[in-house]
Amino acid sequence: MALLAGDGLLTEAFRLMAGTSGVDPRSLLRVIHLVGSAAGYQGMVGGQVVDIQSEGKPVDRALVDFIHSHKTGALIHASVTSGAILGQGTEEQVKAISFYGEKIGLAFQIADDILDVEGDSKTMGKGVGGDASKKKITFPAAVGLQKAKEIQSRLVEDAVGALKGFDEKADPLRSLAVYIIERKK
Amino acid sequence: MALLAGDGLLTEAFRLMAGTSGVDPRSLLRVIHLVGSAAGYQGMVGGQVVDIQSEGKPVDRALVDFIHSHKTGALIHASVTSGAILGQGTEEQVKAISFYGEKIGLAFQIADDILDVEGDSKTMGKGVGGDASKKKITFPAAVGLQKAKEIQSRLVEDAVGALKGFDEKADPLRSLAVYIIERKK
Repeated sequence: MALLAGDGLLTEAFRLMAGTSGVDPRSLLRVIHLVGSAAGYQGMVGGQVVDIQSEGKPVDRALVDFIHSHKTGALIHASVTSGAILGQGTEEQVKAISFYGEKIGLAFQIADDILDVEGDSKTMGKGVGGDASKKKITFPAAVGLQKAKEIQSRLVEDAVGALKGFDEKADPLRSLAVYIIERKK
Repeated sequence: MALLAGDGLLTEAFRLMAGTSGVDPRSLLRVIHLVGSAAGYQGMVGGQVVDIQSEGKPVDRALVDFIHSHKTGALIHASVTSGAILGQGTEEQVKAISFYGEKIGLAFQIADDILDVEGDSKTMGKGVGGDASKKKITFPAAVGLQKAKEIQSRLVEDAVGALKGFDEKADPLRSLAVYIIERKK
């Protein structure tokens, strides 16, 4: 039943997208294609497979980069980029937002890893330190805590930098990028 | 891994559909929506859920109708109807093909049930009689073998009848409908 619920919900997401009215049909197809790439074997599913296969193995930067950008990053990237496409952004704007989404997607997951090491379990509302004890593939495990924080800050800088062509309408995206680093839960 | 393979393949189907080039984008969206309905909780997944919940319970005609038309029928119906939509059929033609697909979808599953009772395991390439021993929900169990055959013949008649407005280009669909009853495996 759990498996069927998953299949039902996954299918329903695509059905709902395809039934969206009031948007340009070509843009909508592009978004469905993008979400399919982000959710499927080229994205989240692929990242999850590599994550499972890698548990307990030595962690390096390339591996953790791959897992994080596919497992979590791809869907965040697709969400942000979909907005740019459906909002009829120019190709240049879509490209800039896409770059932004890629960077914050990865930054979000690194922040999650760091919170698992440093976070307060009361604030988080869940246990911390679980990743290390489960030998999960994390950025702190791959490159150390300090370096993980540097990479994270750099990603957020790059993300905000990609928005330089946008006016104050993009401020929520700028705040979101900064919030990723500053969040405590 | 099996679960991820399923999620990956299901997602890939929608990604591939959305990336189809050379067809009218509105028609393509309509097809994706239709396939989503047929595969998800309103279709195959829904039929499978009711099938699981009903095993071992008393079988009546309405129940077996529901399970068969959702579990198998919906996808056969969607496949046939998608062709009519992408081929730029008129609404009347799409409606006729849709009716045809509904009828042969159900007929196919009844034929499967009947073959499980009457079929030759050598020809079938799989065991027969398995449904009854597993107390599966089948048409012969619900209404008896003779009545199941009558229902099946009527469905195929109705299906072929729906094609009366089409010329000989629809002959493969007519042959397919008849083949469903005549097939021995």
